[in-house]
Amino acid sequence: MTSLEESLAQIAWNPDGLAPAIVQQWDTREVLMLAWLDAEALRRTLTEGRVTYWSRSRQEYWRKGDTSGNTQQLKEARLDCDGDAILLLVDQTGPACHTGTRTCFDAVELRATSEENG
Amino acid sequence: MTSLEESLAQIAWNPDGLAPAIVQQWDTREVLMLAWLDAEALRRTLTEGRVTYWSRSRQEYWRKGDTSGNTQQLKEARLDCDGDAILLLVDQTGPACHTGTRTCFDAVELRATSEENG
Repeated sequence: MTSLEESLAQIAWNPDGLAPAIVQQWDTREVLMLAWLDAEALRRTLTEGRVTYWSRSRQEYWRKGDTSGNTQQLKEARLDCDGDAILLLVDQTGPACHTGTRTCFDAVELRATSEENG
Repeated sequence: MTSLEESLAQIAWNPDGLAPAIVQQWDTREVLMLAWLDAEALRRTLTEGRVTYWSRSRQEYWRKGDTSGNTQQLKEARLDCDGDAILLLVDQTGPACHTGTRTCFDAVELRATSEENG
């Protein structure tokens, strides 16, 4: 019932024209990464079925996997209640993280207190 | 091995002093919402074990569930590879969304093409 441009018009982009995208493996439900989309990146993602981001550090579009081979096939895209965050359900080939780990959240745990050495 | 202030010092806050937090139900792995933390909100979250956010619209701290009763108990907090996004694994009581749905991503699907009416 919703066309591409109607979908894009619902989004409350931030002052830089971006919205954060949470990227989740569709079947295991692992949270893989967080990245940023602008309207054109989302348009490409929805029409191609492969996920493209806007790289804030490089200031360019970045189709996930073009360099690494670790592509993301889009399964479903959802918008949150405020219209300013996007959830991408994907099928991730290989590691999602450029460090080689499956997700970008594998390395560092944030804690209130020190752990004892075992 | 990591103290609270050591944890906080690892985070690359944005120019407003904030970082996006992906909030995930720890056992079912549903992505519940995306919200924002500053250093003090994260400090309170890690020390109290209940999740507190910074509300960008109200410009105040917001301990989830104080008004609605729909609290979030923290199970684990993780930082991503760039240090600028946080994953909070929580135990959500009741709906996470202020609209009354379980997650903030339940209402709107983004699509490239119209769907046929059945």
